[in-house]
Amino acid sequence: MSEARPGQRPLDEALAELLGFASALSDVESVSTFDADGRVLAQDLVSGLHVPPQDNSSMDGYAVRCADLTQLPVVLPVTQRIPAGAGAGAAPLAPGSAARIFTGAPIPAGANAVVMQEDCELQDGAVRIKVQPLPGQWIRRAGEDVAIGATVLASGDRLTPAALGLSASIGMAALLVRRRPRVALFSTGDELVMPGDVAPTDMRPGAIYNSNRFFLRALLLRLGCEVTDLGIVPDRLDATIEALRGAASQHDLILTSGGVSVGEEDHIKPAVQVLGTLALWQIAIKPGKPFAYGRVHDTHFIGLPGNPVSSYVTFLLLVRPFLLKLQGVTELETKSVAAQAHFDWPRADRRREFLRVRHNAAGGLELFANQSSAVLTSAVWGDGLVDNPPGQTIAHGDSVRFIPFAEVLQ
Amino acid sequence: MSEARPGQRPLDEALAELLGFASALSDVESVSTFDADGRVLAQDLVSGLHVPPQDNSSMDGYAVRCADLTQLPVVLPVTQRIPAGAGAGAAPLAPGSAARIFTGAPIPAGANAVVMQEDCELQDGAVRIKVQPLPGQWIRRAGEDVAIGATVLASGDRLTPAALGLSASIGMAALLVRRRPRVALFSTGDELVMPGDVAPTDMRPGAIYNSNRFFLRALLLRLGCEVTDLGIVPDRLDATIEALRGAASQHDLILTSGGVSVGEEDHIKPAVQVLGTLALWQIAIKPGKPFAYGRVHDTHFIGLPGNPVSSYVTFLLLVRPFLLKLQGVTELETKSVAAQAHFDWPRADRRREFLRVRHNAAGGLELFANQSSAVLTSAVWGDGLVDNPPGQTIAHGDSVRFIPFAEVLQ
Repeated sequence: MSEARPGQRPLDEALAELLGFASALSDVESVSTFDADGRVLAQDLVSGLHVPPQDNSSMDGYAVRCADLTQLPVVLPVTQRIPAGAGAGAAPLAPGSAARIFTGAPIPAGANAVVMQEDCELQDGAVRIKVQPLPGQWIRRAGEDVAIGATVLASGDRLTPAALGLSASIGMAALLVRRRPRVALFSTGDELVMPGDVAPTDMRPGAIYNSNRFFLRALLLRLGCEVTDLGIVPDRLDATIEALRGAASQHDLILTSGGVSVGEEDHIKPAVQVLGTLALWQIAIKPGKPFAYGRVHDTHFIGLPGNPVSSYVTFLLLVRPFLLKLQGVTELETKSVAAQAHFDWPRADRRREFLRVRHNAAGGLELFANQSSAVLTSAVWGDGLVDNPPGQTIAHGDSVRFIPFAEVLQ
Repeated sequence: MSEARPGQRPLDEALAELLGFASALSDVESVSTFDADGRVLAQDLVSGLHVPPQDNSSMDGYAVRCADLTQLPVVLPVTQRIPAGAGAGAAPLAPGSAARIFTGAPIPAGANAVVMQEDCELQDGAVRIKVQPLPGQWIRRAGEDVAIGATVLASGDRLTPAALGLSASIGMAALLVRRRPRVALFSTGDELVMPGDVAPTDMRPGAIYNSNRFFLRALLLRLGCEVTDLGIVPDRLDATIEALRGAASQHDLILTSGGVSVGEEDHIKPAVQVLGTLALWQIAIKPGKPFAYGRVHDTHFIGLPGNPVSSYVTFLLLVRPFLLKLQGVTELETKSVAAQAHFDWPRADRRREFLRVRHNAAGGLELFANQSSAVLTSAVWGDGLVDNPPGQTIAHGDSVRFIPFAEVLQ
């Protein structure tokens, strides 16, 4: 193994520079809490009430005073019945009595424990209790989940189903979220054919189906973007300039794949340079490497490599955090966990590698046999990436860093 | 710790019985490959072509014959230039010559390696090569990703962004997928108030905001369902029967939360029993436990517990695989991985527990302080569940089973 080639940049450095170009979109909008899944909060949510609002039962059973149950068994008259939703209707519990109570129902004043019904016997309007309750048993305290005045979610948090539930539980019917980023997807390349336009048996030599647009569009939608698919732009400089100029006025990002290698024949690079600025980066990762960042007027431009797996991985590692930052997300780090390699990787690479792997039944990670950057089946087969540092070999049983696809596909 | 109470059923047994009631919906539909993310294939996809269609270069550089490079350095005349998309246009490579070639361009007949441009120097229409190439170097073979006739995806596979790309790469413009399940969401309970209807400061004693509907709806949408929100049904038997009857005719599943505990005051249970059948299960899990499965005419009915975390966890463990099976998914197991506990859990429970945890900076799992089933903040804070077997304590450093939320939130 040799040193990283001069001019190749570490991923972390490239990511930091890229994120430096992104700042949160200034527009925010109010959406129904029902429709806010995946969106990014643009306000702190401060609770105006306790959740739960008052002490209540977490079991179906009988509310009692512990002082009445020092000698067992005890038979107590049942003086009231408190259903969930009883509100302030429950009378105080007189000493020497019990109240029938249901899950979620308010604890009557004076009671300090709930005995679950399985530990009781009902006898002619009285209840026979055989078990000594602990004070506070089966009582959920007011404010146990959320105390009044607490910040339950903060600006920059990305909303999940559970977060929508939490927002609703403090009475939020609508939430202020960051506007969706508008992204224009671009394809160029004479070899590209759209599925459906030509049957597999009729493909001319050298032609390949455009596949990157399909996963890029799906990844963008999962990240909350509005996507404009500009299709395959004719392979002429004037047409490319015109398409870029039109897209720039209505989008936050123009995203393309292919055409960013040093020697590639493509009009994207000169067209971006005519309209704005473009920097070609060589990032020391595998798959990946070529990457372009530029501006067309005030619009961001990102060019991904054309190889499907390179395009896919580079999107997840660089474009995903970029788009989350545009939406104001504060936690941008790609999540990885420790896992055990159940494979050998004897040849170190000078670049940081992202190997397609999946869990096996033994709890380890297995390697997809073909790690070529052209082999998209590896990304379908795999359930994540091993993040292997430069110059590192891997032996069966080694602990490695694992990036689950599930974490970066949402 | 005592034994599981009589009548409580292990989760695995309950899940197997529940899945026994579900069979794949018979309706399938054709959707654009662009719009098929998250849908479930109802056909095997067999490739009608090789991907890539022919041997091509995986680098920008020069195509050569290895036999010409036995003595180094060598200077070879550059006799042609082969861009990506050149198709059959490339002439055979004469012995003693090199071809300028770009990533994705077809390898000319006779060439058996590519030398990357970084290892070459261009000199007046000739190229000086200093490095000995290995035969096959930087050549992607025809059919390397997908061989003609190979089944790339099978009926029952759930489509991901990468799978859409793979489908497109074999020319599929549309895919046959299972129809979306139609789910009616139901709420009952006099204590429930919709966010927006009453301000936090004006809530009457005992009232709580309806939060379960918000996360249940979002979870259903993430699973590809069409959701009808029937709102809060008036708390009368006749109204409940009428609502259930109306929902049954147009949905595959009626889903409700709350009202399934043994002693609960609710019209859902008797209403389902009037129209069809209902079984109340006590499942030996925590949080969770009460669960109802029934039928209203030919429509499935599932009743979840009302406590938010119980409802959330029970949905993920039971309803999610049920809905995936309705869509024909074949892999229904909830994914869990080994992880290290960075907490102590000294009190064993007779039930199988699902503890809300998240990763800490040291790579271990931390416990949310309050594991009450009412505390929805635990599900927002956490990034997954520890699946703790019945009767099991946990000590700091122990290996535990971890279910990442990311795996079950899609």
